[in-house]
Amino acid sequence: MSEAKIRLYVEHPLGQGQSVQLSRDQAHYLFGVMRLTLGAAVLLFNGQDGEWRATVVEAGKRGGALHCEVQTRPLQVPPDLWLMFAPIKKARTDFIVEKAAEMGARRIVPVQTDFTNAGRVQRDRLQAHAVEAAEQCGGTYVAEVTDMVRLDRALADLGERKVMFCDEALAEAEDTSALLDTPGPWAILIGPEGGFSERERARLHRLEAAYAVQLGPRILRADTAAVAALTVWQQTLGDWR
Amino acid sequence: MSEAKIRLYVEHPLGQGQSVQLSRDQAHYLFGVMRLTLGAAVLLFNGQDGEWRATVVEAGKRGGALHCEVQTRPLQVPPDLWLMFAPIKKARTDFIVEKAAEMGARRIVPVQTDFTNAGRVQRDRLQAHAVEAAEQCGGTYVAEVTDMVRLDRALADLGERKVMFCDEALAEAEDTSALLDTPGPWAILIGPEGGFSERERARLHRLEAAYAVQLGPRILRADTAAVAALTVWQQTLGDWR
Repeated sequence: MSEAKIRLYVEHPLGQGQSVQLSRDQAHYLFGVMRLTLGAAVLLFNGQDGEWRATVVEAGKRGGALHCEVQTRPLQVPPDLWLMFAPIKKARTDFIVEKAAEMGARRIVPVQTDFTNAGRVQRDRLQAHAVEAAEQCGGTYVAEVTDMVRLDRALADLGERKVMFCDEALAEAEDTSALLDTPGPWAILIGPEGGFSERERARLHRLEAAYAVQLGPRILRADTAAVAALTVWQQTLGDWR
Repeated sequence: MSEAKIRLYVEHPLGQGQSVQLSRDQAHYLFGVMRLTLGAAVLLFNGQDGEWRATVVEAGKRGGALHCEVQTRPLQVPPDLWLMFAPIKKARTDFIVEKAAEMGARRIVPVQTDFTNAGRVQRDRLQAHAVEAAEQCGGTYVAEVTDMVRLDRALADLGERKVMFCDEALAEAEDTSALLDTPGPWAILIGPEGGFSERERARLHRLEAAYAVQLGPRILRADTAAVAALTVWQQTLGDWR
Protein backbone atom coordinates (compact mmCIF):
# COMPACT_ATOMS: atom_id res chain seq x y z
CA MET A 1 0.00 0.00 0.00
CA SER A 2 1.23 3.48 -0.81
CA GLU A 3 1.90 5.94 1.97
CA ALA A 4 -0.99 8.26 2.77
CA LYS A 5 0.18 11.85 2.80
CA ILE A 6 -3.14 13.62 2.58
CA ARG A 7 -5.38 14.08 5.62
CA LEU A 8 -8.95 14.95 4.79
CA TYR A 9 -11.83 15.93 7.03
CA VAL A 10 -15.16 14.40 5.92
CA GLU A 11 -18.67 14.72 7.28
CA HIS A 12 -19.37 11.03 7.01
CA PRO A 13 -19.32 8.05 9.41
CA LEU A 14 -16.02 6.15 9.29
CA GLY A 15 -15.52 2.47 10.07
CA GLN A 16 -14.15 -0.82 8.78
CA GLY A 17 -15.29 -1.38 5.19
CA GLN A 18 -17.23 1.89 5.14
CA SER A 19 -17.60 3.53 1.75
CA VAL A 20 -17.25 7.31 1.67
CA GLN A 21 -18.76 9.32 -1.17
CA LEU A 22 -16.83 12.46 -2.07
CA SER A 23 -18.33 15.85 -2.75
CA ARG A 24 -17.48 17.68 -5.94
CA ASP A 25 -15.00 19.93 -4.09
CA GLN A 26 -13.29 16.99 -2.42
CA ALA A 27 -13.04 15.12 -5.72
CA HIS A 28 -11.57 18.21 -7.36
CA TYR A 29 -9.01 18.52 -4.56
CA LEU A 30 -7.98 14.85 -4.49
CA PHE A 31 -8.02 14.08 -8.22
CA GLY A 32 -7.64 17.49 -9.88
CA VAL A 33 -5.21 19.23 -7.53
CA MET A 34 -3.41 16.39 -5.77
CA ARG A 35 -3.59 14.03 -8.78
CA LEU A 36 -4.50 10.92 -6.79
CA THR A 37 -5.45 7.85 -8.82
CA LEU A 38 -7.28 4.60 -8.07
CA GLY A 39 -5.74 2.72 -5.16
CA ALA A 40 -4.07 5.79 -3.64
CA ALA A 41 -4.29 6.08 0.13
CA VAL A 42 -5.79 8.99 2.09
CA LEU A 43 -6.19 9.54 5.83
CA LEU A 44 -9.74 10.47 6.83
CA PHE A 45 -11.18 11.84 10.04
CA ASN A 46 -14.58 13.23 10.93
CA GLY A 47 -14.02 14.49 14.44
CA GLN A 48 -15.77 11.45 15.95
CA ASP A 49 -14.45 8.11 14.71
CA GLY A 50 -10.68 8.65 14.88
CA GLU A 51 -8.40 8.57 11.84
CA TRP A 52 -8.87 5.98 9.09
CA ARG A 53 -6.75 4.91 6.19
CA ALA A 54 -8.85 4.77 3.06
CA THR A 55 -8.13 4.06 -0.58
CA VAL A 56 -9.56 5.59 -3.71
CA VAL A 57 -12.01 3.15 -5.35
CA GLU A 58 -13.70 5.59 -7.71
CA ALA A 59 -12.25 8.80 -9.13
CA GLY A 60 -14.21 11.23 -11.27
CA LYS A 61 -14.32 14.90 -12.08
CA ARG A 62 -17.49 15.52 -10.14
CA GLY A 63 -17.24 12.89 -7.44
CA GLY A 64 -15.66 9.68 -6.31
CA ALA A 65 -15.51 7.22 -3.46
CA LEU A 66 -13.07 6.02 -0.84
CA HIS A 67 -13.04 2.71 0.99
CA CYS A 68 -12.11 2.73 4.70
CA GLU A 69 -9.59 0.04 5.53
CA VAL A 70 -8.07 0.40 8.94
CA GLN A 71 -8.19 2.81 11.83
CA THR A 72 -4.79 4.46 12.11
CA ARG A 73 -5.51 6.51 15.26
CA PRO A 74 -8.29 6.55 17.80
CA LEU A 75 -10.30 9.70 18.48
CA GLN A 76 -8.42 12.00 20.83
CA VAL A 77 -10.68 14.64 22.25
CA PRO A 78 -8.70 17.60 23.66
CA PRO A 79 -9.23 18.68 27.28
CA ASP A 80 -12.44 20.50 28.16
CA LEU A 81 -11.11 23.96 27.39
CA TRP A 82 -12.87 26.78 25.58
CA LEU A 83 -11.19 29.79 24.06
CA MET A 84 -13.33 32.92 24.28
CA PHE A 85 -12.02 35.97 22.43
CA ALA A 86 -13.20 39.31 21.11
CA PRO A 87 -12.79 39.25 17.31
CA ILE A 88 -10.30 41.72 15.93
CA LYS A 89 -9.13 42.38 12.38
CA LYS A 90 -9.97 39.60 9.95
CA ALA A 91 -6.50 38.13 9.47
CA ARG A 92 -5.81 38.05 13.20
CA THR A 93 -9.23 36.55 13.96
CA ASP A 94 -8.56 33.78 11.44
CA PHE A 95 -5.20 33.30 13.04
CA ILE A 96 -6.65 32.97 16.55
CA VAL A 97 -9.09 30.29 15.37
CA GLU A 98 -6.34 28.37 13.57
CA LYS A 99 -4.06 28.55 16.61
CA ALA A 100 -6.78 27.59 19.10
CA ALA A 101 -7.59 24.50 17.01
CA GLU A 102 -3.91 23.54 16.74
CA MET A 103 -3.30 24.10 20.43
CA GLY A 104 -6.19 21.87 21.44
CA ALA A 105 -9.14 24.03 22.47
CA ARG A 106 -12.37 22.06 22.38
CA ARG A 107 -14.62 25.02 21.63
CA ILE A 108 -13.94 28.49 20.22
CA VAL A 109 -16.34 31.25 21.26
CA PRO A 110 -16.19 34.70 19.63
CA VAL A 111 -17.54 37.19 22.17
CA GLN A 112 -18.95 40.65 21.62
CA THR A 113 -17.64 43.04 24.24
CA ASP A 114 -18.41 46.71 24.75
CA PHE A 115 -15.25 47.67 22.86
CA THR A 116 -15.47 45.03 20.10
CA ASN A 117 -16.05 46.59 16.71
CA ALA A 118 -15.91 43.45 14.61
CA GLY A 119 -19.57 43.61 13.67
CA ARG A 120 -20.64 40.21 12.43
CA VAL A 121 -18.48 37.12 12.49
CA GLN A 122 -18.75 34.60 9.68
CA ARG A 123 -19.03 31.41 11.67
CA ASP A 124 -18.77 29.15 8.62
CA ARG A 125 -15.51 30.71 7.50
CA LEU A 126 -14.02 30.42 10.99
CA GLN A 127 -15.21 26.81 11.27
CA ALA A 128 -13.49 26.05 7.96
CA HIS A 129 -10.24 27.43 9.44
CA ALA A 130 -10.64 25.11 12.43
CA VAL A 131 -11.13 22.14 10.06
CA GLU A 132 -8.05 23.07 8.04
CA ALA A 133 -6.00 23.42 11.23
CA ALA A 134 -7.11 19.93 12.32
CA GLU A 135 -6.13 18.51 8.92
CA GLN A 136 -2.71 20.15 9.26
CA CYS A 137 -1.89 19.39 12.86
CA GLY A 138 -2.78 15.71 12.82
CA GLY A 139 -5.68 16.13 15.21
CA THR A 140 -8.61 13.72 15.09
CA TYR A 141 -10.99 16.22 16.69
CA VAL A 142 -12.30 19.46 15.21
CA ALA A 143 -12.77 22.44 17.51
CA GLU A 144 -16.32 23.75 17.36
CA VAL A 145 -16.65 27.44 16.50
CA THR A 146 -19.84 28.96 17.91
CA ASP A 147 -21.74 32.02 16.77
CA MET A 148 -20.66 35.28 18.34
CA VAL A 149 -22.32 35.86 21.70
CA ARG A 150 -22.40 38.88 23.97
CA LEU A 151 -19.85 38.65 26.77
CA ASP A 152 -22.60 38.96 29.42
CA ARG A 153 -24.43 36.01 27.93
CA ALA A 154 -21.23 33.96 27.54
CA LEU A 155 -20.30 34.51 31.19
CA ALA A 156 -23.81 33.68 32.36
CA ASP A 157 -23.65 30.41 30.41
CA LEU A 158 -20.38 29.26 31.95
CA GLY A 159 -21.96 27.43 34.87
CA GLU A 160 -19.22 25.73 36.89
CA ARG A 161 -16.61 26.38 34.24
CA LYS A 162 -13.58 28.29 35.52
CA VAL A 163 -12.15 31.22 33.54
CA MET A 164 -8.59 32.30 32.99
CA PHE A 165 -8.44 36.00 32.10
CA CYS A 166 -5.73 37.73 30.22
CA ASP A 167 -6.22 41.45 30.67
CA GLU A 168 -3.16 43.49 31.43
CA ALA A 169 -5.29 46.11 33.15
CA LEU A 170 -6.56 43.57 35.67
CA ALA A 171 -4.16 43.99 38.55
CA GLU A 172 -3.19 41.24 40.97
CA ALA A 173 -2.55 38.42 38.56
CA GLU A 174 -2.29 35.05 40.19
CA ASP A 175 0.73 32.87 40.04
CA THR A 176 -0.06 30.29 37.38
CA SER A 177 0.90 27.57 39.85
CA ALA A 178 -2.38 28.45 41.61
CA LEU A 179 -4.12 26.90 38.61
CA LEU A 180 -2.60 23.54 39.36
CA ASP A 181 -5.16 22.82 42.03
CA THR A 182 -8.16 23.57 39.88
CA PRO A 183 -8.85 20.87 37.31
CA GLY A 184 -12.23 20.59 35.61
CA PRO A 185 -13.77 22.48 32.70
CA TRP A 186 -12.09 25.77 31.88
CA ALA A 187 -12.34 28.72 29.54
CA ILE A 188 -9.65 31.19 28.55
CA LEU A 189 -10.91 34.71 27.90
CA ILE A 190 -8.78 37.07 25.84
CA GLY A 191 -9.70 40.74 26.21
CA PRO A 192 -10.36 42.97 23.20
CA GLU A 193 -7.81 45.47 21.93
CA GLY A 194 -9.24 48.44 23.81
CA GLY A 195 -9.50 46.34 26.99
CA PHE A 196 -12.73 45.58 28.83
CA SER A 197 -15.14 48.37 29.77
CA GLU A 198 -15.50 49.38 33.40
CA ARG A 199 -18.84 47.64 33.54
CA GLU A 200 -17.37 44.42 32.13
CA ARG A 201 -14.38 44.61 34.40
CA ALA A 202 -16.63 44.91 37.46
CA ARG A 203 -18.61 41.93 36.24
CA LEU A 204 -15.45 39.88 35.75
CA HIS A 205 -14.22 40.76 39.21
CA ARG A 206 -17.45 39.50 40.73
CA LEU A 207 -17.02 36.07 39.10
CA GLU A 208 -15.90 33.59 41.68
CA ALA A 209 -14.29 31.12 39.30
CA ALA A 210 -12.11 33.69 37.52
CA TYR A 211 -8.33 33.68 37.57
CA ALA A 212 -6.35 36.58 36.15
CA VAL A 213 -2.98 35.59 34.73
CA GLN A 214 -0.08 37.78 33.82
CA LEU A 215 1.64 37.05 30.51
CA GLY A 216 4.92 38.82 31.05
CA PRO A 217 5.99 42.45 31.29
CA ARG A 218 5.16 43.43 27.69
CA ILE A 219 1.67 44.03 26.35
CA LEU A 220 0.77 41.16 24.02
CA ARG A 221 -1.51 41.51 21.03
CA ALA A 222 -4.70 39.49 21.34
CA ASP A 223 -3.50 36.76 18.95
CA THR A 224 -0.17 36.38 20.77
CA ALA A 225 -1.94 36.34 24.11
CA ALA A 226 -4.25 33.56 22.89
CA VAL A 227 -1.37 31.24 21.98
CA ALA A 228 0.58 32.10 25.14
CA ALA A 229 -2.44 31.54 27.41
CA LEU A 230 -3.26 28.23 25.69
CA THR A 231 0.36 27.16 26.24
CA VAL A 232 0.23 28.05 29.94
CA TRP A 233 -3.04 26.18 30.39
CA GLN A 234 -2.07 23.11 28.38
CA GLN A 235 1.20 22.82 30.27
CA THR A 236 -0.43 23.25 33.65
CA LEU A 237 -3.77 21.48 33.33
CA GLY A 238 -4.06 20.12 29.81
CA ASP A 239 -2.75 17.37 27.59
CA TRP A 240 0.83 18.67 27.31
CA ARG A 241 1.73 17.41 30.75
CA MET B 1 0.49 68.24 29.68
CA SER B 2 -1.60 66.20 27.27
CA GLU B 3 -1.52 62.43 27.47
CA ALA B 4 0.96 60.77 25.13
CA LYS B 5 -0.73 58.04 23.15
CA ILE B 6 1.83 57.54 20.41
CA ARG B 7 4.99 55.52 20.97
CA LEU B 8 7.68 56.11 18.40
CA TYR B 9 11.00 54.40 17.83
CA VAL B 10 13.79 56.80 16.87
CA GLU B 11 17.43 56.26 15.99
CA HIS B 12 18.62 59.14 18.10
CA PRO B 13 20.11 59.56 21.59
CA LEU B 14 17.46 60.37 24.21
CA GLY B 15 17.99 62.32 27.44
CA GLN B 16 16.86 65.28 29.52
CA GLY B 17 16.52 68.35 27.33
CA GLN B 18 17.62 66.45 24.22
CA SER B 19 16.27 67.73 20.94
CA VAL B 20 15.22 65.07 18.41
CA GLN B 21 15.02 65.92 14.72
CA LEU B 22 12.36 64.00 12.81
CA SER B 23 12.79 62.35 9.45
CA ARG B 24 10.38 63.14 6.64
CA ASP B 25 8.53 59.83 7.22
CA GLN B 26 8.22 60.45 10.94
CA ALA B 27 6.99 64.00 10.39
CA HIS B 28 4.43 62.70 7.89
CA TYR B 29 3.23 60.10 10.39
CA LEU B 30 3.01 62.45 13.40
CA PHE B 31 1.66 65.57 11.71
CA GLY B 32 0.01 64.28 8.54
CA VAL B 33 -1.51 61.00 9.72
CA MET B 34 -1.88 61.45 13.48
CA ARG B 35 -2.50 65.24 13.25
CA LEU B 36 -0.31 66.21 16.19
CA THR B 37 0.26 69.90 16.72
CA LEU B 38 2.81 71.99 18.65
CA GLY B 39 2.97 71.00 22.30
CA ALA B 40 1.54 67.51 21.77
CA ALA B 41 3.23 64.72 23.70
CA VAL B 42 4.84 61.59 22.24
CA LEU B 43 6.65 58.69 23.90
CA LEU B 44 10.04 57.97 22.36
CA PHE B 45 12.41 55.04 22.71
CA ASN B 46 15.55 54.06 20.87
CA GLY B 47 16.28 50.62 22.30
CA GLN B 48 19.01 52.02 24.57
CA ASP B 49 17.93 54.97 26.71
CA GLY B 50 14.53 53.82 27.99
CA GLU B 51 11.27 55.58 27.19
CA TRP B 52 11.04 59.39 27.18
CA ARG B 53 8.15 61.76 27.08
CA ALA B 54 8.76 64.41 24.46
CA THR B 55 6.73 67.31 23.10
CA VAL B 56 6.45 68.67 19.60
CA VAL B 57 8.41 71.91 19.31
CA GLU B 58 8.50 72.16 15.52
CA ALA B 59 6.04 70.65 13.06
CA GLY B 60 6.47 70.79 9.31
CA LYS B 61 5.56 68.82 6.22
CA ARG B 62 9.06 67.58 5.65
CA GLY B 63 10.42 67.50 9.17
CA GLY B 64 10.07 68.69 12.70
CA ALA B 65 11.54 68.40 16.16
CA LEU B 66 10.67 67.00 19.56
CA HIS B 67 12.01 68.03 22.94
CA CYS B 68 12.70 65.28 25.50
CA GLU B 69 11.29 66.13 28.88
CA VAL B 70 11.27 63.25 31.28
CA GLN B 71 12.14 59.56 31.27
CA THR B 72 8.91 57.62 31.70
CA ARG B 73 10.46 54.14 31.84
CA PRO B 74 13.99 52.83 32.15
CA LEU B 75 15.49 50.52 29.53
CA GLN B 76 14.34 46.95 30.11
CA VAL B 77 16.48 44.52 28.19
CA PRO B 78 14.77 41.14 27.78
CA PRO B 79 16.54 37.98 28.94
CA ASP B 80 19.45 36.67 26.88
CA LEU B 81 17.31 34.57 24.57
CA TRP B 82 17.62 34.16 20.82
CA LEU B 83 14.93 32.81 18.54
CA MET B 84 16.37 30.85 15.62
CA PHE B 85 13.89 29.77 12.97
CA ALA B 86 13.78 28.57 9.38
CA PRO B 87 11.84 31.16 7.34
CA ILE B 88 8.60 29.95 5.84
CA LYS B 89 5.98 31.75 3.79
CA LYS B 90 6.23 35.54 3.93
CA ALA B 91 3.19 36.24 6.11
CA ARG B 92 4.15 33.59 8.65
CA THR B 93 7.78 34.72 8.71
CA ASP B 94 6.64 38.29 9.42
CA PHE B 95 4.40 36.90 12.08
CA ILE B 96 7.20 34.97 13.79
CA VAL B 97 9.37 38.09 13.94
CA GLU B 98 6.52 40.18 15.34
CA LYS B 99 5.72 37.55 17.96
CA ALA B 100 9.35 36.98 18.97
CA ALA B 101 9.75 40.72 19.53
CA GLU B 102 6.53 40.91 21.57
CA MET B 103 7.42 37.87 23.62
CA GLY B 104 10.83 39.25 24.54
CA ALA B 105 13.49 37.55 22.45
CA ARG B 106 16.69 39.59 22.42
CA ARG B 107 17.85 38.44 19.00
CA ILE B 108 16.04 36.87 16.04
CA VAL B 109 18.11 34.67 13.74
CA PRO B 110 16.66 33.35 10.46
CA VAL B 111 18.47 30.09 9.67
CA GLN B 112 18.87 28.33 6.35
CA THR B 113 18.37 24.60 6.80
CA ASP B 114 18.59 21.82 4.24
CA PHE B 115 14.82 21.90 3.77
CA THR B 116 14.36 25.69 3.87
CA ASN B 117 13.22 27.08 0.56
CA ALA B 118 12.76 30.68 1.55
CA GLY B 119 15.59 31.90 -0.64
CA ARG B 120 16.67 35.30 0.56
CA VAL B 121 15.31 37.01 3.63
CA GLN B 122 14.85 40.78 3.60
CA ARG B 123 16.51 41.66 6.86
CA ASP B 124 15.41 45.31 6.74
CA ARG B 125 11.76 44.40 6.35
CA LEU B 126 11.91 41.93 9.23
CA GLN B 127 13.76 44.47 11.40
CA ALA B 128 10.97 46.98 10.68
CA HIS B 129 8.45 44.40 11.94
CA ALA B 130 10.45 44.02 15.16
CA VAL B 131 10.46 47.82 15.61
CA GLU B 132 6.72 48.01 15.05
CA ALA B 133 6.14 45.21 17.54
CA ALA B 134 8.21 47.07 20.14
CA GLU B 135 6.20 50.25 19.52
CA GLN B 136 2.99 48.27 20.01
CA CYS B 137 3.88 46.15 23.00
CA GLY B 138 5.32 48.92 25.15
CA GLY B 139 8.83 47.49 25.08
CA THR B 140 11.84 49.77 25.46
CA TYR B 141 14.17 47.34 23.69
CA VAL B 142 14.12 46.34 20.02
CA ALA B 143 14.95 42.75 19.13
CA GLU B 144 17.82 42.59 16.66
CA VAL B 145 17.10 40.66 13.46
CA THR B 146 20.24 39.20 11.91
CA ASP B 147 20.92 38.21 8.33
CA MET B 148 20.00 34.65 7.44
CA VAL B 149 22.79 32.20 8.34
CA ARG B 150 23.24 28.53 7.54
CA LEU B 151 22.19 26.29 10.41
CA ASP B 152 25.68 24.76 10.62
CA ARG B 153 27.21 28.18 11.02
CA ALA B 154 24.57 29.28 13.54
CA LEU B 155 25.17 26.21 15.70
CA ALA B 156 28.94 26.62 15.50
CA ASP B 157 28.57 30.23 16.69
CA LEU B 158 26.50 29.35 19.76
CA GLY B 159 29.46 28.89 22.07
CA GLU B 160 28.18 28.18 25.58
CA ARG B 161 24.61 29.12 24.66
CA LYS B 162 22.09 26.35 25.35
CA VAL B 163 19.48 25.43 22.76
CA MET B 164 15.86 24.40 23.17
CA PHE B 165 14.70 22.40 20.15
CA CYS B 166 11.19 22.01 18.95
CA ASP B 167 11.14 19.20 16.45
CA GLU B 168 8.36 16.69 16.74
CA ALA B 169 10.50 14.05 15.05
CA LEU B 170 13.14 14.31 17.77
CA ALA B 171 12.10 11.59 20.17
CA GLU B 172 12.72 11.66 23.91
CA ALA B 173 11.68 15.18 24.70
CA GLU B 174 12.73 16.36 28.11
CA ASP B 175 10.36 17.45 30.78
CA THR B 176 10.46 21.22 30.67
CA SER B 177 11.12 21.24 34.40
CA ALA B 178 14.61 19.99 33.49
CA LEU B 179 15.21 23.45 32.06
CA LEU B 180 14.79 25.02 35.47
CA ASP B 181 18.31 24.15 36.49
CA THR B 182 19.95 25.65 33.45
CA PRO B 183 19.97 29.44 33.50
CA GLY B 184 22.33 31.43 31.29
CA PRO B 185 22.17 32.40 27.63
CA TRP B 186 19.73 30.37 25.56
CA ALA B 187 18.43 29.97 22.04
CA ILE B 188 15.17 28.46 20.87
CA LEU B 189 15.39 26.66 17.52
CA ILE B 190 12.19 26.06 15.55
CA GLY B 191 12.50 23.41 12.85
CA PRO B 192 11.45 24.05 9.24
CA GLU B 193 8.22 22.75 7.79
CA GLY B 194 9.75 19.62 6.26
CA GLY B 195 11.65 18.93 9.50
CA PHE B 196 15.41 18.73 9.78
CA SER B 197 17.46 16.59 7.39
CA GLU B 198 19.12 13.42 8.70
CA ARG B 199 22.46 15.18 8.59
CA GLU B 200 21.16 18.12 10.60
CA ARG B 201 19.40 15.87 13.07
CA ALA B 202 22.62 13.96 13.73
CA ARG B 203 24.42 17.25 14.26
CA LEU B 204 21.77 18.43 16.69
CA HIS B 205 21.95 15.21 18.65
CA ARG B 206 25.69 15.63 19.08
CA LEU B 207 25.25 19.05 20.66
CA GLU B 208 25.76 18.79 24.37
CA ALA B 209 23.77 21.88 25.34
CA ALA B 210 20.64 20.93 23.39
CA TYR B 211 17.28 20.23 25.01
CA ALA B 212 14.39 18.84 22.98
CA VAL B 213 11.00 19.89 24.23
CA GLN B 214 7.62 18.47 23.39
CA LEU B 215 4.87 20.97 22.67
CA GLY B 216 1.85 18.75 23.12
CA PRO B 217 0.33 15.84 21.16
CA ARG B 218 -0.60 17.81 18.05
CA ILE B 219 1.84 18.96 15.38
CA LEU B 220 2.20 22.73 15.62
CA ARG B 221 2.93 24.97 12.67
CA ALA B 222 6.27 26.75 12.92
CA ASP B 223 4.70 30.08 13.89
CA THR B 224 2.56 28.50 16.61
CA ALA B 225 5.54 26.53 17.89
CA ALA B 226 7.58 29.73 18.12
CA VAL B 227 5.04 31.46 20.39
CA ALA B 228 4.47 28.32 22.48
CA ALA B 229 8.20 27.68 22.94
CA LEU B 230 8.82 31.32 23.88
CA THR B 231 6.02 31.04 26.45
CA VAL B 232 7.52 27.89 27.96
CA TRP B 233 10.96 29.46 28.16
CA GLN B 234 9.82 32.84 29.51
CA GLN B 235 7.73 31.13 32.18
CA THR B 236 10.52 28.79 33.20
CA LEU B 237 13.68 30.86 32.83
CA GLY B 238 12.72 34.30 31.59
CA ASP B 239 11.14 37.52 32.73
CA TRP B 240 7.59 36.17 33.16
CA ARG B 241 8.45 34.53 36.45
